[in-house]
Amino acid sequence: MKIAVDAAGGDHYPQNPVSGAVLAVQESDNINIVLIGPESDTRKELDKHDYPEGRIILHEAPEVIGMEESPAQAVRNKTQSSIVVGLGMHQKGAVDGFVSAGNTGALMAASAFILGRLDGVIRPTIATLFPTVKGFGLMVDAGANLEVKPEMLFQFGVMGNIYARDIIGIETPRVGLLNVGEEKEKGSETLKKAHVLLEALPNFIGNLEGRDILSGQADVFICDGITGNILLKFGESIPDALKMLLMGVIKKRQLDKEQVAMVVSLLEEAFSPFDYQKVGGVPFLGVNGISMVGHGGSSPVAIKNMIFNAVRMAETDINKKIIASVA
Amino acid sequence: MKIAVDAAGGDHYPQNPVSGAVLAVQESDNINIVLIGPESDTRKELDKHDYPEGRIILHEAPEVIGMEESPAQAVRNKTQSSIVVGLGMHQKGAVDGFVSAGNTGALMAASAFILGRLDGVIRPTIATLFPTVKGFGLMVDAGANLEVKPEMLFQFGVMGNIYARDIIGIETPRVGLLNVGEEKEKGSETLKKAHVLLEALPNFIGNLEGRDILSGQADVFICDGITGNILLKFGESIPDALKMLLMGVIKKRQLDKEQVAMVVSLLEEAFSPFDYQKVGGVPFLGVNGISMVGHGGSSPVAIKNMIFNAVRMAETDINKKIIASVA
Repeated sequence: MKIAVDAAGGDHYPQNPVSGAVLAVQESDNINIVLIGPESDTRKELDKHDYPEGRIILHEAPEVIGMEESPAQAVRNKTQSSIVVGLGMHQKGAVDGFVSAGNTGALMAASAFILGRLDGVIRPTIATLFPTVKGFGLMVDAGANLEVKPEMLFQFGVMGNIYARDIIGIETPRVGLLNVGEEKEKGSETLKKAHVLLEALPNFIGNLEGRDILSGQADVFICDGITGNILLKFGESIPDALKMLLMGVIKKRQLDKEQVAMVVSLLEEAFSPFDYQKVGGVPFLGVNGISMVGHGGSSPVAIKNMIFNAVRMAETDINKKIIASVA
Repeated sequence: MKIAVDAAGGDHYPQNPVSGAVLAVQESDNINIVLIGPESDTRKELDKHDYPEGRIILHEAPEVIGMEESPAQAVRNKTQSSIVVGLGMHQKGAVDGFVSAGNTGALMAASAFILGRLDGVIRPTIATLFPTVKGFGLMVDAGANLEVKPEMLFQFGVMGNIYARDIIGIETPRVGLLNVGEEKEKGSETLKKAHVLLEALPNFIGNLEGRDILSGQADVFICDGITGNILLKFGESIPDALKMLLMGVIKKRQLDKEQVAMVVSLLEEAFSPFDYQKVGGVPFLGVNGISMVGHGGSSPVAIKNMIFNAVRMAETDINKKIIASVA
């Protein structure tokens, strides 16, 4: 398996992509890496590491797409960027997948544009992992599709189901539709029709409400990209907000230093599931290829996990299964 | 001011509505109450209290709409219910407002049907209070309107702005539109058009993202009823989910009894803003009258606060201002 890694993406490049690539080849004999990015900087970083000779190679891509750049424009104009070059190599079959901690919007646009859609897929989607008291749930769509049709929501469920089963490893994922009530007849016309379509999925468990997310009542939560994006960013803001509320109470009560240290360390550990940097990235589903994106702050371990996920997607032939399921 | 109180609504009736009514007349000389519900049960409860003679009267409404009943059906069939009778009295001008801790859907349907819309309002909406690190934000719509048009979102902003200013008492409320990005050109077609319309509001602060809610970046958050409803229920689920996560860590670390008690009491206080029962209910906006609804578990104090809010809405003539602003 040969995976292309964006060496010019994320908040800490080339350090973290390079370290992640080294971790991946050290941990698995089965993986070779192509680091895509400005070659001399990437080389300098790579030379700091020991790694199995020949299993990491470099590929020049002099342009860098910034984290805040307008996605569509960046992809159109920066044809020599790591994202455009890497996905182009994948499209030509030179590598088995592409992973990046770079600009999510640019990756999304480039993945759809360069790799194209899978047969039968109306719109590619981006999934995201969401912390729950039981571990993680997969939320599809996380912001790629702001206007959805019932058939699209159905396909998000189909694709999320396959990813949760084959890549996350949940034997029979519980797939649910986010809605304003549990009953089948609740929601907008779009949600009602999507519900009916989703009943064709044997492991569809029906409508879910907002309270069912953190409590982990499903493994796959289907929603439109607006709801998913707002919930995702809302979820990310919980630890800071609650730390602030707790710190206010701690101050008022004048706890001693030892007590404060104990409470702070408890909080850190309890909130660790919300630390997205530990997560190994999330996939674009429905594109004709394998494209994963991680948090801008992805650690080397997160990048390694993303590489392994990409390998698993290639090995399990996830796209063939998606084509068969949406047909 | 004469306010009708639903004596047969909520999880603890007639006790809490009756106690709330008693608290209200004890605290303010300016308020008279009509308790609407099955008269003998309500009388029995009222007789347990001391209150200024003649300032609380009863009005018979023998039917009770359950918390889980289908709203439209209940309103249609139970014409002798406290909700239908109370709103009917308000519509005829016999009372200045109606408050209830009962079935929200039924109240919404009955308010719109019996009171009708204000001139120029496309659709009445339900607002809700949402805890932030700075206090509370007002979220409009909280679940009444699942399909929205740009003009409706604009009106939610207008109505939320007036309520936040005149009833909550924020001099210049910051009004924002929940969206997937800060930039004006972000979002669905509906959100983009709503943004343009909202620019007519001097205190419109633009698009807000999911991360801006808990951090209190606005006083009024505009969204459709699906997003609002999912966020509301998601928010309500945070304390329990985080307690569960924290308790897991506490168990693992084998803290002693005293430490556990300290942490639990810290949490209780920090999470108290999420305790909706302390909140004094939320209004239906855009109906031709004054109708407030509280959490099913509303305490007597919450019911008293709702009564005071209804009085303030009547005194400030909020509906006249809404009509003027949407014109």
